[in-house]
Amino acid sequence: MMPAKLKTAVVGATGYSGLELTRLLLRHPRLDKPSLLSRENGAQPANLADAFPMLSGNGGHPLQPLSWERLKQQGVELLFLATPHETSRSLVPAAIAQGLRVIDLSGAWRLKQEQHRAVYDFHDDDSVTAAELTKMAVYGLPELNADRIAGSALVANPGCYATSVILAVAPLLQAGIIDRQRGIISDSKSGVSGAGKEPNARTHFVSVADNLSAYSVFGHRHVGEIVEQLRLNLGELTFTPHLLPIPRGILSTVYVYLNRPMTTAEVESCFRGFYAGKPWVRIFASPQLPQIQFSLRTNYCDLGFCLAEDGRRLVLVSCVDNLLKGAAGQAVQNMNLMFGWQEEEGLQ
Amino acid sequence: MMPAKLKTAVVGATGYSGLELTRLLLRHPRLDKPSLLSRENGAQPANLADAFPMLSGNGGHPLQPLSWERLKQQGVELLFLATPHETSRSLVPAAIAQGLRVIDLSGAWRLKQEQHRAVYDFHDDDSVTAAELTKMAVYGLPELNADRIAGSALVANPGCYATSVILAVAPLLQAGIIDRQRGIISDSKSGVSGAGKEPNARTHFVSVADNLSAYSVFGHRHVGEIVEQLRLNLGELTFTPHLLPIPRGILSTVYVYLNRPMTTAEVESCFRGFYAGKPWVRIFASPQLPQIQFSLRTNYCDLGFCLAEDGRRLVLVSCVDNLLKGAAGQAVQNMNLMFGWQEEEGLQ
Amino acid sequence: MMPAKLKTAVVGATGYSGLELTRLLLRHPRLDKPSLLSRENGAQPANLADAFPMLSGNGGHPLQPLSWERLKQQGVELLFLATPHETSRSLVPAAIAQGLRVIDLSGAWRLKQEQHRAVYDFHDDDSVTAAELTKMAVYGLPELNADRIAGSALVANPGCYATSVILAVAPLLQAGIIDRQRGIISDSKSGVSGAGKEPNARTHFVSVADNLSAYSVFGHRHVGEIVEQLRLNLGELTFTPHLLPIPRGILSTVYVYLNRPMTTAEVESCFRGFYAGKPWVRIFASPQLPQIQFSLRTNYCDLGFCLAEDGRRLVLVSCVDNLLKGAAGQAVQNMNLMFGWQEEEGLQ
Amino acid sequence: MMPAKLKTAVVGATGYSGLELTRLLLRHPRLDKPSLLSRENGAQPANLADAFPMLSGNGGHPLQPLSWERLKQQGVELLFLATPHETSRSLVPAAIAQGLRVIDLSGAWRLKQEQHRAVYDFHDDDSVTAAELTKMAVYGLPELNADRIAGSALVANPGCYATSVILAVAPLLQAGIIDRQRGIISDSKSGVSGAGKEPNARTHFVSVADNLSAYSVFGHRHVGEIVEQLRLNLGELTFTPHLLPIPRGILSTVYVYLNRPMTTAEVESCFRGFYAGKPWVRIFASPQLPQIQFSLRTNYCDLGFCLAEDGRRLVLVSCVDNLLKGAAGQAVQNMNLMFGWQEEEGLQ
Repeated sequence: MMPAKLKTAVVGATGYSGLELTRLLLRHPRLDKPSLLSRENGAQPANLADAFPMLSGNGGHPLQPLSWERLKQQGVELLFLATPHETSRSLVPAAIAQGLRVIDLSGAWRLKQEQHRAVYDFHDDDSVTAAELTKMAVYGLPELNADRIAGSALVANPGCYATSVILAVAPLLQAGIIDRQRGIISDSKSGVSGAGKEPNARTHFVSVADNLSAYSVFGHRHVGEIVEQLRLNLGELTFTPHLLPIPRGILSTVYVYLNRPMTTAEVESCFRGFYAGKPWVRIFASPQLPQIQFSLRTNYCDLGFCLAEDGRRLVLVSCVDNLLKGAAGQAVQNMNLMFGWQEEEGLQ
Repeated sequence: MMPAKLKTAVVGATGYSGLELTRLLLRHPRLDKPSLLSRENGAQPANLADAFPMLSGNGGHPLQPLSWERLKQQGVELLFLATPHETSRSLVPAAIAQGLRVIDLSGAWRLKQEQHRAVYDFHDDDSVTAAELTKMAVYGLPELNADRIAGSALVANPGCYATSVILAVAPLLQAGIIDRQRGIISDSKSGVSGAGKEPNARTHFVSVADNLSAYSVFGHRHVGEIVEQLRLNLGELTFTPHLLPIPRGILSTVYVYLNRPMTTAEVESCFRGFYAGKPWVRIFASPQLPQIQFSLRTNYCDLGFCLAEDGRRLVLVSCVDNLLKGAAGQAVQNMNLMFGWQEEEGLQ
Repeated sequence: MMPAKLKTAVVGATGYSGLELTRLLLRHPRLDKPSLLSRENGAQPANLADAFPMLSGNGGHPLQPLSWERLKQQGVELLFLATPHETSRSLVPAAIAQGLRVIDLSGAWRLKQEQHRAVYDFHDDDSVTAAELTKMAVYGLPELNADRIAGSALVANPGCYATSVILAVAPLLQAGIIDRQRGIISDSKSGVSGAGKEPNARTHFVSVADNLSAYSVFGHRHVGEIVEQLRLNLGELTFTPHLLPIPRGILSTVYVYLNRPMTTAEVESCFRGFYAGKPWVRIFASPQLPQIQFSLRTNYCDLGFCLAEDGRRLVLVSCVDNLLKGAAGQAVQNMNLMFGWQEEEGLQ
Repeated sequence: MMPAKLKTAVVGATGYSGLELTRLLLRHPRLDKPSLLSRENGAQPANLADAFPMLSGNGGHPLQPLSWERLKQQGVELLFLATPHETSRSLVPAAIAQGLRVIDLSGAWRLKQEQHRAVYDFHDDDSVTAAELTKMAVYGLPELNADRIAGSALVANPGCYATSVILAVAPLLQAGIIDRQRGIISDSKSGVSGAGKEPNARTHFVSVADNLSAYSVFGHRHVGEIVEQLRLNLGELTFTPHLLPIPRGILSTVYVYLNRPMTTAEVESCFRGFYAGKPWVRIFASPQLPQIQFSLRTNYCDLGFCLAEDGRRLVLVSCVDNLLKGAAGQAVQNMNLMFGWQEEEGLQ
């Protein structure tokens, strides 16, 4: 007998990540068609295909107002939030109280340490609950935290930049090979969908095209996630994001110094060992390097590297699609772990 | 003795056309440094270089509030308006009353016939004055109206699309060669700066990149200008604008049928004759065709064509930089005519 | 019992269309993993994933030299050719003689009339066979020729531009609504992958970016296909292709005049009737128009239109992804018809 | 009396840098119209405007074969080489022997140390002369070497990347503020014109658009220039170039650690002091940072920075237009110094 299909719901399907997530959920073999929920009445289209003609032809995608009552009646077990972090912060306590499991794509529940949370100005109605939820939330990076994700009721889906940086650095750091005293530098570049859908002077086509700009130097919100997950001190990481004139994709060029001279084979071996059995990380054999195009529209994190002749200076290159491995794809990967399915399901 | 330099002022220097105009005026050999006027208090930067770092290094460019009194004291003779048409509609009567000459880059004064003006919803305080000004305004297309521009106090600078279409069609139409009964079609494509600087869903980088879209089919505001200048009936022209994923530049592909079979040499001769002595139109020898890149950052309108073997079907290609020949450059060309200078001055 | 899966082979998997086709075949539920054949020895990578890292992670994709003997041993029934037309012209006679069915993505077998074939300079070894094959080949546009495709041994997959134009014009033309005497004009715009993979001055990034250019005016190879399929005289169609600064996607703006004034509802009804039951054509309700982004990475042909107030001038907008509905996707759709499967299989 | 205008000649006017240089020379007030020389017979267009329609309208630009005899008759004093380094290596000895002064835009004469020259495989006919010329050549970075440039007969115009990196690092390094032991990292990004005009798989539009890639990690030719000019050891500099999906412009993000904690004001002061009186470097006040658009189509090198709270970690951002300050503009700036003119002449 076929097992019953899982019922899911999405809040925020009209944003870039939410739309990508909706597309993935619609074709996932283990799922019923997801319920699409609007936060506000009337502000959003009654049917997602009205706003996104690319979705038409598959039947209707009606948006319904969020109602805990109705979700319970529909038998929804898993709720995805592709909402601003303030909204996630306010919705999650109720959702957990209703017995729903939650995957939150915002930054609301990613950070354990208060010093890092300061970059988000949370206004929690009930700080006790918020503190408890902050503690119980699991950082949803499957390659690092698969076991804890599997059993979690609240998964904080990682930031796109953070995914690219953490996966590049974790293997060598855990192996104790990196000279942390010399510092770790990630020079990261992202397509514009990472800046969100809101039109502003910065996302205007004429501002972005034929241009490149650095921003939020020493002040980007993803720094907290990275140092928490890698257990670094803030001063050990320098992270500089840049806005690329492309719609999507991230490339992080990460600079580390090694404790002792190593060979290319040793470095590659460290990566291959760490990611053995992880289906969504691809290791490139040096000197071949990932490019943004290679991982675009896939859930892969592509990793490559070049080692200087001195065997000490190492340049890592890490690419993800910010809307997939950096957001919606990783959310599906987390769902697969939470419900005991193959990590690849619905993502190929 | 060197003649005294002309004093000019610009309202709207922070828009795309206004900024381009300011750059041209700053380097024009016949001009004093232009006065830059802000319409509102505080909404705009006190110094243009604060908003546009590309202007820094040439000294300051302070914005001052618009005051007729002060303009008079400064001896300003010519006022450029790079403002929304509503603003131009309200500023021009006062400016003319003050004895200023005006070049208006908006659509406020381009249209003589009321049926065409309906696409702009003008709210004129004093409709008598507005009607008089509408009548006295000269459509500032130098290749057609040079004499009248020279003596005018109010020049309505043409629309960017209109410039590209009118210059392509005028020579053959005036020669009576076009079979008007079969209709004239202009399929026009523009870069995003033509859509203005306001950020909205349509100008967001992710909406424009990797895309092309038609818009305002049978309803674009420039249709009125084109049919008025070419003396066509509305039904004789079909004009379809498209939004290109580039910052600037227009290419219009214009389709006409000829009354009788002609040769390529005859068509070229018609164009060369019409534009003899016109420095800002370049005729390409068939089958070579203009491309957007060729006229970018120049004041040229580039014209080329291909004639079918039957000698009757003619495809015209017309390119302009929408911010130069399509706006600021043409405004300078008009100024040159108004003050008796060479049409090329300050534009090379 | 599960039916045995179909065995297929691809020649030319390293071109843009061939790679897209290979991706589709790899995930089609009715197919075994396709055999990838190289035309030459050594010129191509031994493994497709070496050249296309985006394919790695799915196992190897070895390229093997083409051998009719081996294809027979492997039980291959269907051969895809994503090759230059000269190559298709020389491979097809042998393939058909071996009892293979063939879907050819080139222009080699699309044209019935000699006058149109002149644009291809075919050098056929055995002109009798070539003439017979030309006669038996079916033009693989499923929305027009589904029945004949189903029974065909040689399907000539349509050109990308031709697909976008024919599907836009066919419903109205067949309904006898178009005033053919006034002419049909298609102003078409394509992304650069349509120009093929060979690097040249025209496809250099710096030549394409921030640019738009018309080319092959009155001389493009797809004109023959369009007029043959639509049964037009050459003089009734004017087709102008343009090169867009985007990687993929086609938008054709088609201009027709109607025999008598019609309403928007009548025009829409004509389209909906013609394409009823056709899963890969989407009709947009006027005034909503397709954009290139909407059909990108799908097999849809999106059709929309705007009718002038006079009810006679009609602007049609047609969008396809040149590599999918314009090439590889349509080839899969044709395969589905040839083997009695749903047209949607493997394309969603 | 007006001084006689300088006569110049250009070899290689059809490349990206050569064309940009030709445009600058054509409008430089101190120069006669430059002679444009072709290296080969027939391979290049007889008239530059045939290949570059954007140059038409200014009269003809005939290319003539290179002849030392004719250059002498024409009174040419200064020769620009915008040629591959092999060509520069072979032409310069003869040019110097003829008494010409030379500005070479290639990498042929930039490097003093043999270990760095190894990346270029020079084949010198007469190694004695080559060695002498290598010694006498002056590295043409005006902000560092103005005096020596003024008196030089052979100026080696810097590489585009090298210009952006050296100008960012020189002030702090010379002030002894940088902790060299922790290493200097430049993560640099360039538009495609920097990769030259030759079409290949890497410069194909489809390879570049929607992409970003790192290349030549630990092996780029400009490393030698940078370390020579900054007097660094090879191991102290890590330089990673990336190919941006834009036609032109360079942004280098440079990471250094300071010897002691500093304030933003101190760092800015160091920059302002170093570049006082240098017209072509603009310092941005932190936290404002340069963007590629700001310096595009100007000769400026724009410099900005962000200092971490610890006062030790410093991120520098440096932008140049690779064809102007990174090539042709800098060549004109060097010419201005060589002939005793203002550095700004012909560059505004």
